[in-house]
Amino acid sequence: MQPHPFDQAIHLEPHGPDVFAGHSGPGYWNMVGPFGGITAATALNAVMRHPAALGEPVSLTVNFAHALAQGPFSATARALRTNRSTQHWTVELQQPDGAGAAQTVLTATVLMGVRRDTWGASDVPMPPVPAPELVPRLEGPAQIEWLNRYEARPLAGAIPRQWDGQPNQAGPDAASLSRLWMRDHPPRALDFCSLTALADFFFPRVFLRRASRVPAGTVSMTVYFHADGATLQSCGTGYLLGQARGQVFYKGFFDQSAVLWSQAGTPLVTSSQIVYYKE
Amino acid sequence: MQPHPFDQAIHLEPHGPDVFAGHSGPGYWNMVGPFGGITAATALNAVMRHPAALGEPVSLTVNFAHALAQGPFSATARALRTNRSTQHWTVELQQPDGAGAAQTVLTATVLMGVRRDTWGASDVPMPPVPAPELVPRLEGPAQIEWLNRYEARPLAGAIPRQWDGQPNQAGPDAASLSRLWMRDHPPRALDFCSLTALADFFFPRVFLRRASRVPAGTVSMTVYFHADGATLQSCGTGYLLGQARGQVFYKGFFDQSAVLWSQAGTPLVTSSQIVYYKE
Repeated sequence: MQPHPFDQAIHLEPHGPDVFAGHSGPGYWNMVGPFGGITAATALNAVMRHPAALGEPVSLTVNFAHALAQGPFSATARALRTNRSTQHWTVELQQPDGAGAAQTVLTATVLMGVRRDTWGASDVPMPPVPAPELVPRLEGPAQIEWLNRYEARPLAGAIPRQWDGQPNQAGPDAASLSRLWMRDHPPRALDFCSLTALADFFFPRVFLRRASRVPAGTVSMTVYFHADGATLQSCGTGYLLGQARGQVFYKGFFDQSAVLWSQAGTPLVTSSQIVYYKE
Repeated sequence: MQPHPFDQAIHLEPHGPDVFAGHSGPGYWNMVGPFGGITAATALNAVMRHPAALGEPVSLTVNFAHALAQGPFSATARALRTNRSTQHWTVELQQPDGAGAAQTVLTATVLMGVRRDTWGASDVPMPPVPAPELVPRLEGPAQIEWLNRYEARPLAGAIPRQWDGQPNQAGPDAASLSRLWMRDHPPRALDFCSLTALADFFFPRVFLRRASRVPAGTVSMTVYFHADGATLQSCGTGYLLGQARGQVFYKGFFDQSAVLWSQAGTPLVTSSQIVYYKE
């Protein structure tokens, strides 16, 4: 059986202490490099595959320093501090430049933690939305290859149909908010790596805010996990509800705040990112 | 003239390429280490004082790996990738353990960027609040030393007066939300480092949610800057309005989302953090 395209894309081979070898391919290609969510998932995978990893992911921050080219890269994961129930990691992805010198393409920090039962609560209730089966699927095939690896059913704040500089939505609440059902295509059982990629699914908020294809790209993304492995396993291949909104757009960078809920309404991830935009 | 306590606390001396020497003192002491905001500001200071720094801070993520002890520490700041208008840094703070071996106490990543004029907007309008002069100041002296370095005028979600397990506030909106006017004490002109510290001002959301002194501490904080140096300078020693709310509390960790506005209503920072709590 062929592995799922997602597993192929984030695959890493051990290549010495703390170092893994990866290969960037066309399967999740975006405009000038792979979909950032795949690269973020690969960075997390380097920690999760490391024999010294403690517990499960609690927090991940990835900094996209440069677009990856198709071809080999290295991923180095180092545990800088291990406490009783938490562990602090740094990750670096490198790729040779034209002259063969290793250049940093991504840096990341990962917090791993041993989960224990405590009091819990959610202050981000899932908004009332129709079931995924009742929401039309975004039709493909998309020209952007990685979009073909996902199923998306937009509920609000879909990508503009007309790039006329006239946003459809008005008012401070609706201005930069998107909601959609989403999952891998073909369906794949949810885990920490695929959840990380899904947290980066949303198109740049500046598109929605301006109805204009302003050049834009994520430079840093932070993901907080609010689920353990067993919870993710129980989600299976179900849909996730994703919601993202822009916060501040200022002199070339805007930030986005996002929440991903399981189909059953459990918040699995809160995430934020800061995105470069050109004009 | 004595330097301001904040400048003393974040002070770093060059100590070789990429390395600075610092000294952790009692001025901003919390329970078992310095106030996290001061340590975060020190990490940013290592990048800002580095001769290779490009532009101004856009994004900062700090991971608190271990409480700092009072005494000397080293701060290492490395520029891993410099692009035309952005620069990716990693920072590590180390302190000797009992046996004299250097141990990691903090890791950080910083994105520096050259700001240029673009379209801009805010989707986080400042809520209507009374002017700071009309809001009573939180009276001290506080037993927690670092609180004496700040002036706080709480508007909503103040720290519980009775630790009886009966939260004052009810409803999903109010449950974990705090608002306050705040600034350094004595007043000090705002800059990127002091803004970073102020982004960590809020007490743990779990206190508010449960009216119980659950042991808690920030493990990772991300700050997105939405202002340039000239904007911060124009804020002078004015108050900032800070607002924070919890999102998800799950098995030992909860996250917080925050916004800081200038007294004039400009959003300066959006921030998130994930916080360990014990039970």
